[in-house]
Amino acid sequence: MTPTITAFEHSPDGGQGLARDTRVRWAFEEVGQPYKVHLVSFNAMKEPEHMARHPFGQIPTYEEGNLVLFESGAIVFHIAERHAGLLPAEAEARARAIAWMFAALNTVEPPILDRATTWISEWKEPWCEQRLRLVDDRIRDRLGDLSTRLGSADWLDGPFSAGDLMMVSVLIRLRSSGILDEYPNLSAYVARGEARPAYRRAFAAQLAINAGKQPA
Amino acid sequence: MTPTITAFEHSPDGGQGLARDTRVRWAFEEVGQPYKVHLVSFNAMKEPEHMARHPFGQIPTYEEGNLVLFESGAIVFHIAERHAGLLPAEAEARARAIAWMFAALNTVEPPILDRATTWISEWKEPWCEQRLRLVDDRIRDRLGDLSTRLGSADWLDGPFSAGDLMMVSVLIRLRSSGILDEYPNLSAYVARGEARPAYRRAFAAQLAINAGKQPA
Repeated sequence: MTPTITAFEHSPDGGQGLARDTRVRWAFEEVGQPYKVHLVSFNAMKEPEHMARHPFGQIPTYEEGNLVLFESGAIVFHIAERHAGLLPAEAEARARAIAWMFAALNTVEPPILDRATTWISEWKEPWCEQRLRLVDDRIRDRLGDLSTRLGSADWLDGPFSAGDLMMVSVLIRLRSSGILDEYPNLSAYVARGEARPAYRRAFAAQLAINAGKQPA
Repeated sequence: MTPTITAFEHSPDGGQGLARDTRVRWAFEEVGQPYKVHLVSFNAMKEPEHMARHPFGQIPTYEEGNLVLFESGAIVFHIAERHAGLLPAEAEARARAIAWMFAALNTVEPPILDRATTWISEWKEPWCEQRLRLVDDRIRDRLGDLSTRLGSADWLDGPFSAGDLMMVSVLIRLRSSGILDEYPNLSAYVARGEARPAYRRAFAAQLAINAGKQPA
């Protein structure tokens, strides 16, 4: 059975690939599995039908038969566990790849999300600009450590894995900030991720829905 | 071989159980596995020996033979995968429990962390109090949805799982804020988690290290 995911009917980013369905699309493309997409409006996301799929009324979700999942991290992991291509077969390498997934979502993404939230929700506040500088320094703390660990390697731990998929997806959110440019090896890392044919197909698929629509 | 985790030599919370080693200790206790603890000072956390264990210079880490893991989510998952007691055997229930782990760490914890960061790092800023009110409302958005989903159930999806372990651990961070009291079923959920013998042993073990020491 082909799984169905949900995505924004109108993505707030107008198709820049920042919505979290892109991560899930990318995972499907890496493992060569087809998927269907069910688009939901902002209103529909908060209605009972969708809240039954996703307790927090967000996208993406994953449905396959009776199984309903939410959280992009969990969905990418579910795909990676069931199909070859995103997790190493060797047990210790697999555990380390999973650690990088959690690191992307729980250590690197929070200050990056804070930046986005401050921009979107606090731009009218008198403190916005000053606070963004504090948040940017917190982001730099993470990126500095990540840059040191990556060094001159192509990927975080051996071949490309779901850990890299998630880390690149999180770092892409910094594209418009210019902060990533301060870390040439991280910029190159993100560019390597974006150059993967699977990412390009995922990006094109979400853009096809949003192209020509105004960002919300 | 008994795994070794790292924990703060002096926890910033003075033993309230908010440091992330408590989650990992709790997981070990739930599955009945012994573990060793290696304490690290704030200085040692940023030195090469520890940065080799943890790319972001934090605790906890997990070492067992040649395997070195970081990120409390990844470590709890690693323990849960290898020992019965934290993940359902049935595949779909297991996937849903994992989704709750990711939801705790990537959807519920970020605004709660934002609150802690604002308190700790921005208390001197003129905007601190006003901004905390905004952040508290973001926390309430998450808690409201979580409360609705939990309803009158004991745990998020069937029997207690690693998803509940992680969600309770994240919600405990709100203890001093009073916000949790606005959601009686979530308060009761956290209390159920804290009442588990495994949690009590984990809490006592971290308190034994920090008791009598001043919070940093």
